[in-house]
Amino acid sequence: MSRVVQKFGGSSLADLACMRRAAQLVAQRWHEGWQVVVVVSAMGGRTDDLLALASEASKAHAPASAETDALLATGEQESAALMTLCLHHIGLKARSYTGWQIPVETCGAHGNARVQQIATANVLATLQEKAIAVCTGFQGTTSNGERITTLGRGGSDTSAVLLAAALEAERCEIFTDVEGVYTTDPRIVTTARKIATIDYEEMLEMAALGARVLETRAASAAMRFRVPLLIRSTFSESPGTSVSATDKTMEQRSVTALAYSDKDAKIALVGLDNTPGIAAKVFAQLALNNISVDMIVQGTTQDEKKAHITFTVAKTDLENACVALEEIRTDAPFQELRCDDKVIKISLIGAGMNSYAGVASRMFRTLADKGINIQIIATSEIKISVLIAADYLELAVRSLHAVFELQKETSSPLSSPLSSPLSSPLSSPPSSPPSLSKSTAR
Amino acid sequence: MSRVVQKFGGSSLADLACMRRAAQLVAQRWHEGWQVVVVVSAMGGRTDDLLALASEASKAHAPASAETDALLATGEQESAALMTLCLHHIGLKARSYTGWQIPVETCGAHGNARVQQIATANVLATLQEKAIAVCTGFQGTTSNGERITTLGRGGSDTSAVLLAAALEAERCEIFTDVEGVYTTDPRIVTTARKIATIDYEEMLEMAALGARVLETRAASAAMRFRVPLLIRSTFSESPGTSVSATDKTMEQRSVTALAYSDKDAKIALVGLDNTPGIAAKVFAQLALNNISVDMIVQGTTQDEKKAHITFTVAKTDLENACVALEEIRTDAPFQELRCDDKVIKISLIGAGMNSYAGVASRMFRTLADKGINIQIIATSEIKISVLIAADYLELAVRSLHAVFELQKETSSPLSSPLSSPLSSPLSSPPSSPPSLSKSTAR
Repeated sequence: MSRVVQKFGGSSLADLACMRRAAQLVAQRWHEGWQVVVVVSAMGGRTDDLLALASEASKAHAPASAETDALLATGEQESAALMTLCLHHIGLKARSYTGWQIPVETCGAHGNARVQQIATANVLATLQEKAIAVCTGFQGTTSNGERITTLGRGGSDTSAVLLAAALEAERCEIFTDVEGVYTTDPRIVTTARKIATIDYEEMLEMAALGARVLETRAASAAMRFRVPLLIRSTFSESPGTSVSATDKTMEQRSVTALAYSDKDAKIALVGLDNTPGIAAKVFAQLALNNISVDMIVQGTTQDEKKAHITFTVAKTDLENACVALEEIRTDAPFQELRCDDKVIKISLIGAGMNSYAGVASRMFRTLADKGINIQIIATSEIKISVLIAADYLELAVRSLHAVFELQKETSSPLSSPLSSPLSSPLSSPPSSPPSLSKSTAR
Repeated sequence: MSRVVQKFGGSSLADLACMRRAAQLVAQRWHEGWQVVVVVSAMGGRTDDLLALASEASKAHAPASAETDALLATGEQESAALMTLCLHHIGLKARSYTGWQIPVETCGAHGNARVQQIATANVLATLQEKAIAVCTGFQGTTSNGERITTLGRGGSDTSAVLLAAALEAERCEIFTDVEGVYTTDPRIVTTARKIATIDYEEMLEMAALGARVLETRAASAAMRFRVPLLIRSTFSESPGTSVSATDKTMEQRSVTALAYSDKDAKIALVGLDNTPGIAAKVFAQLALNNISVDMIVQGTTQDEKKAHITFTVAKTDLENACVALEEIRTDAPFQELRCDDKVIKISLIGAGMNSYAGVASRMFRTLADKGINIQIIATSEIKISVLIAADYLELAVRSLHAVFELQKETSSPLSSPLSSPLSSPLSSPPSSPPSLSKSTAR
């Protein structure tokens, strides 16, 4: 029997009316003959409310602690129980599972725990009893099972993907408040097109580069465990975007999508002593302070004894980064530390893009034509990112979207071989389970 | 080292300001040198909100189910985590425990579970680490540990008393929004007096007969396990009421308090066939339908072939009782079934009261003088209850309170022997733990 994990985010569970709509989507799959495992986030806004309470109780900014985790975990426990009651109401057999009931074993880092193991026996027993298992996302326990841990914001996507992997589900459906993955933000580019099929690597880059439709960790887990995803809206019948492995030799389109992120800030260390190992000192100090660095550019000045290093960190780390760098100023002397948090990172994403000559030059030319200065460039196998002044966000996104013709549907073979089960999500009858073979699916 | 359980009800945890006040009361005990175990209810109003959500999700009246329990349990989990964060904030070491973390093992009756066993090793380990254990009241697990159960409304009092018994605590402090146990409802009788010391049996009768300060189950558990209680206000320094075993030979006062309840309804079966076993048939049918009967009076008419039976049931059971009785009408014929839910039960309570002649006659005389008709009378070792028309509530309560001089403080030895530790709750220094010896305490 085919098995599906359906994950509903907070906006899909904002109130009981939304929950009933979600319950209908579960019922639809159930009546099609699937075994269904539901993964829920907290009701929309609840996690923020609980975090505010924790901050107020501690008179400090949202402390990451065992107690904050115990508090936050109530959000998903609440929505799992309510969703189960909604399923009962429409005549379905169902039971809820908290993180400790599944159980989901994590490393003990409170507020940012990593899943180590998911036991499947309990959930499978419920499925065997022809019932629906409604699991709390976002939470687990310490490895000794004693305390509650949470996976960090957006962890419910990750819970859903990892549960799908552990349960060997045919696919994982991520229900959200948008209709799928778009070529870029439709609020900026009205011609932004929903992508029918996207590759794991592309999805991962898009998530990492700022597309908010799926958490980066979840995209990474899906890629690692080859879990086919279907990203859909709870509130429409639109088929959504399917994320799966694609045959790269068959690709025709080089640029799939355009993402942007306003979460970065730029730091420039000007007039650094240009001695061997100076960059290592700088980045070691940042790593020591748990600050991740993203884009980096290093250059020398006319005076060869001085160097510049420019890089980006998360905006939330900017202040700590400056403090950390001042601390090593005697050991790694620099003339000036310049910060800028009015920057935006824009990325073109496409599997195998680097094999297409001219994407980068076309991107730079387009920006130059609009008078947009590129501050840093970073590239990988499947993306090119540039850092520009935040003011140019809309202009840059619209220009690049048009130049790369992302609004046009292509008849790329990319979207054909796997699309039949995943792009018509509401039609598979029980007698014809999704045609994704096991070997393709994992 | 002396050990105390401190229980805070919903009104004591209505918001974070209240929680901080409660945390200060915990800190006070801690700094006096006690080992402290805190038991919390859900934040004021939260359980009602969650029940309303469950009813709305089920489109039915608050379903008692595993899922409703999973939902309700989040209320105490939330307040336990927040209380712990408040304790951290004022520099105390503390950790929270849910029902499954303690664990509290119950019979599996969802919505009305009975505690079977409380494991103490985890909580004791926390106390040994010089930390405060903050436990969720009201909840436990099924005996296999798999599902969450709740103890029914007001179950947190019971959790606290049973935890105190299991942990062999010197006493259990019940913090609420009133200053203790009163001779009667101060909203009706302005001269109602707070009782300094009360006997387990009296407390149990008062709870059972309608005094809302303590749950009946908790009073019963305290009596059974001889857990000394101190009932106090979170919001005042008043010493509260201590509940413990008393030496009955030393009692002087016969009537301690006056309780009333508006939760009963009266049913009269008029013109029952007066055959042997007719009453048994009636009450067996009610028992079969899980309907408890409280006060009963049976009489014959002038026609000796007919009998009347009048009794009370909970108002919430009235409709079911009538249906159940109609069902057996062919087997146990009666001429008429009369219902009345405009009745009130008023009870005089006092340990050993039945040994004082005249209490009953004085009670009946007082009511007769005011023209109040007594519909049913019920007596026990330590109480006399009468059922009267609800309209006379205030008149009856005020008259009886005055006649039995309950407003007067007596110098009864009853309040002396055990009062030193319990009536000065905020003063025991670490070097002088409460003087209740183990043999007295349990």
